Amino acid sequence: MIKETLRVEGMSCNHCANAVTGALKDLTEEATVDLKAGMVTVAYDESRANIEQIKAAIEEQGYDVI
Amino acid sequence: MIKETLRVEGMSCNHCANAVTGALKDLTEEATVDLKAGMVTVAYDESRANIEQIKAAIEEQGYDVI
Repeated sequence: MIKETLRVEGMSCNHCANAVTGALKDLTEEATVDLKAGMVTVAYDESRANIEQIKAAIEEQGYDVI
Repeated sequence: MIKETLRVEGMSCNHCANAVTGALKDLTEEATVDLKAGMVTVAYDESRANIEQIKAAIEEQGYDVI
């Protein structure tokens, strides 16, 4: 299991947090959003997903991973 | 038909706009959100809803009508 924290721009409210965690549900074991900090922490299994897929899923929701 | 514009605090993104317009769908003929201005414009039929019900529906979504 890999745990990683990403800086994500543009998440402004709980709807945004839910959109991101929802998009990461099938890719990660756990995904948590810190709205104030603009951070997303993910724990994922390398056999199931890689960080590029995770970043792409966040960006598909309209946010920038920086 | 009555048309009214309400000042609404706390709407930060398109998810918020959709939450508000969704909550107003059954009460109004038309509901549009101006996110930047923090305004919601509604057109409604007095026989179907009143402004207090409309304000309550917005507040139920977690926003303040001021």
